[in-house]
Amino acid sequence: MKANRILSGMQPSGKLHLGNYFGALKNWVSLQDEFECYFSIADWHALSSLYETPQSIKEYSFELAVDWLSAGLDPDKSTMFVQSEISEHAELHMILSMIVPVPWLERNPTYKEKQDEIKNVDMNSYGFLGYPVLQTADIILYKANYVPVGVDQAPHLEISREIVRRFHKLYKKKVFIEPRAKISDVPKLNGLDGRKMSKTYNNAIFISDSEKEVAKKIQSMLTDPARARRDDPGDPDACNLYPFHKIYSPQTMRDEIESDCRTAKIGCGDCKKMLTQTMLEGMKPMREKRKEILARPGDVKEILREGALKARAVAKSTMEQTRQAMQLT
Amino acid sequence: MKANRILSGMQPSGKLHLGNYFGALKNWVSLQDEFECYFSIADWHALSSLYETPQSIKEYSFELAVDWLSAGLDPDKSTMFVQSEISEHAELHMILSMIVPVPWLERNPTYKEKQDEIKNVDMNSYGFLGYPVLQTADIILYKANYVPVGVDQAPHLEISREIVRRFHKLYKKKVFIEPRAKISDVPKLNGLDGRKMSKTYNNAIFISDSEKEVAKKIQSMLTDPARARRDDPGDPDACNLYPFHKIYSPQTMRDEIESDCRTAKIGCGDCKKMLTQTMLEGMKPMREKRKEILARPGDVKEILREGALKARAVAKSTMEQTRQAMQLT
Repeated sequence: MKANRILSGMQPSGKLHLGNYFGALKNWVSLQDEFECYFSIADWHALSSLYETPQSIKEYSFELAVDWLSAGLDPDKSTMFVQSEISEHAELHMILSMIVPVPWLERNPTYKEKQDEIKNVDMNSYGFLGYPVLQTADIILYKANYVPVGVDQAPHLEISREIVRRFHKLYKKKVFIEPRAKISDVPKLNGLDGRKMSKTYNNAIFISDSEKEVAKKIQSMLTDPARARRDDPGDPDACNLYPFHKIYSPQTMRDEIESDCRTAKIGCGDCKKMLTQTMLEGMKPMREKRKEILARPGDVKEILREGALKARAVAKSTMEQTRQAMQLT
Repeated sequence: MKANRILSGMQPSGKLHLGNYFGALKNWVSLQDEFECYFSIADWHALSSLYETPQSIKEYSFELAVDWLSAGLDPDKSTMFVQSEISEHAELHMILSMIVPVPWLERNPTYKEKQDEIKNVDMNSYGFLGYPVLQTADIILYKANYVPVGVDQAPHLEISREIVRRFHKLYKKKVFIEPRAKISDVPKLNGLDGRKMSKTYNNAIFISDSEKEVAKKIQSMLTDPARARRDDPGDPDACNLYPFHKIYSPQTMRDEIESDCRTAKIGCGDCKKMLTQTMLEGMKPMREKRKEILARPGDVKEILREGALKARAVAKSTMEQTRQAMQLT
């Protein structure tokens, strides 16, 4: 029996890339043994930016599950489910919406940031304003003790904790758990062009990319911008490629690169060749797992179906306790 | 088979008074024969003002059903149900929230009005800002053609119609019906003190009041304020009592009052005695019906249980069509 529960989720809005993998998913995989984990495919959240093209969400949800499984999420250890299949998320969201003051949401910095960031679609919907309310419902419905986040996202949880405290104060009964951030170290890893890896920047290596695609993308990668010619010495610390070596290449190879790049003994082409070799090798288990999974797509659906059953049972019980605390039943 | 569908609802926030009866409920009763009617006990809406004391909502919901039945709503003709028992209201609300821009809600005049009106509780919740979204879900989930409203409430429906049009435009499939207002004439009827009848003003005659209570309240009613003494002639058109005579008293009595008040042949006490007699008589059928109903409270619960079953079937089907139109399934 695992003592503590974890809840996290991702929006089904496209293929996962290595930034997503090293930023979150890899950590989830390692949390599975210690914690009771619930992972939600947050399709209602995805609607906040995809409401003009919702037909993509179903396909993305399936792909997300495939990405998760190929990265090592294990249905025997973790519960994976699609958010909209558990209507209790909408019900608890409804109840919480009645106790959350609008100013709490208006002062949420992410609300403004996303509106500035996403330009191709209006992000001024009522639902998007309230996404922290839905996110809170997502978390506390499963009485999660921890939510795994990167260090910069930790403040996002504060509003969930505030909402829980407000509920408990209003109804004088402890139903929920104030979720805490489980902060993990995330390796710095940028996109091909040196900017943050993002599918909108078209600079991402996806965990589902073929060997050929990965090799081609490595070829196109920005390296040390100061190293203009082959004969110039390079600086791994200023190189956009080198962080990938830190993840995928053995220490001996990295030592070799450290010295041979700085002395211009090797060129960026050589370095890319080395990375291609170690990275393809490193990504191999995921690629093979994916092949297995895609050969049996019915299994993926079954995993989500069973995940929904398990999640629903927990969610129903929490909603019942919620109504009891409010004396609504 | 009735051709058109009606949806309306009331918040379970206390006993109904004659203002509610003549302003809405009486009209509902008469619509039952011509229309397929769905009447919702809007307990989630009630939370927007009662979130600090939600324990009252369950009792109020039962009382509201009793008020409805005693006034003549007939479970063989109409479907009566409790909103929160149909989780599809929360689900459709979630979906619609993603396509409703916040400014549509901010410019809703009722939002500001209610905030000014209700002083004992903060009305600044996210849920209250979005009540037109929930209200729209309430209506269109049942594909109601009409919503019975007083003439001053007709603009409230406009946002529901706008939301329906936006959904149809975005997803290029007609799922819903743009609800139209069914405007009914409402007799002008104020409270005991001449202000709008309202339980917060403590000036209401409730449809559940006993004969004794009604008689006592009539005694305390404001009449023509210009008629200071018994000998002064009165003016029925300036009298707060006379509109009740128009509803409850026969033409002959009203003719008599018209002339005898203006000539000071009768005093306000006489006039009140006459009203007490006709009003107690007029309210008698409701009172007797109520006695029957309260003798079998289990029947009320059964009516709501069956209503929920019927409503849920319709709501589930509409939600399925909604998801199909958006290609979410």
